[in-house]
Amino acid sequence: MLEKTTRVNFLFDFYQALLTPKQRNYMELYYLEDYSLGEISETFTVSRQAVYDNIRRTESMLEAYEDKLHLYEKFKERQELLNQLVTVLDDQEFLQAEKLVKALKELE
Amino acid sequence: MLEKTTRVNFLFDFYQALLTPKQRNYMELYYLEDYSLGEISETFTVSRQAVYDNIRRTESMLEAYEDKLHLYEKFKERQELLNQLVTVLDDQEFLQAEKLVKALKELE
Repeated sequence: MLEKTTRVNFLFDFYQALLTPKQRNYMELYYLEDYSLGEISETFTVSRQAVYDNIRRTESMLEAYEDKLHLYEKFKERQELLNQLVTVLDDQEFLQAEKLVKALKELE
Repeated sequence: MLEKTTRVNFLFDFYQALLTPKQRNYMELYYLEDYSLGEISETFTVSRQAVYDNIRRTESMLEAYEDKLHLYEKFKERQELLNQLVTVLDDQEFLQAEKLVKALKELE
């Protein structure tokens, strides 16, 4: 469950600009502010079920955007390469560092 | 004009997964294969005006996605940082390299 939440948080971070204001509101309250479905439904005077459906639909949209654009996947790859690069720089091994820079450039 | 074409090509590269198959077809033929509007309209047996309108609308969509997600802008920033990093590695100046890696990590 924690892993799923982390993933949704990252996807929300990358793709929130493509959501409607209502979708963004519900997601922010539920995932970032830790509101319950009941609290959100009271805040917006809509049914708990409507909030639930909206959030589930938004999660599916975020996954659909990720399937198409892979921003989270590429972000993780880039972070991994940068972590390796930092290690290499500590070891002062230049050739390896240059290989990693090349890999990073080719990632886009 | 060349600068505009380069920009559209990059935006197409980043956001083509969000376009419809028809939009992708027209854009590929026009921008990548260098077909004229007339040639595309003959290929698909539609009017030249329809092809023109579709391509202009697609260009607007690509710019709208860029306004929201900034993938091309971030790509250019990252390339610039990586170019600086390569220079620094050639000079064997470690501290600077580490600063750049930090900047790269914070970019996402």
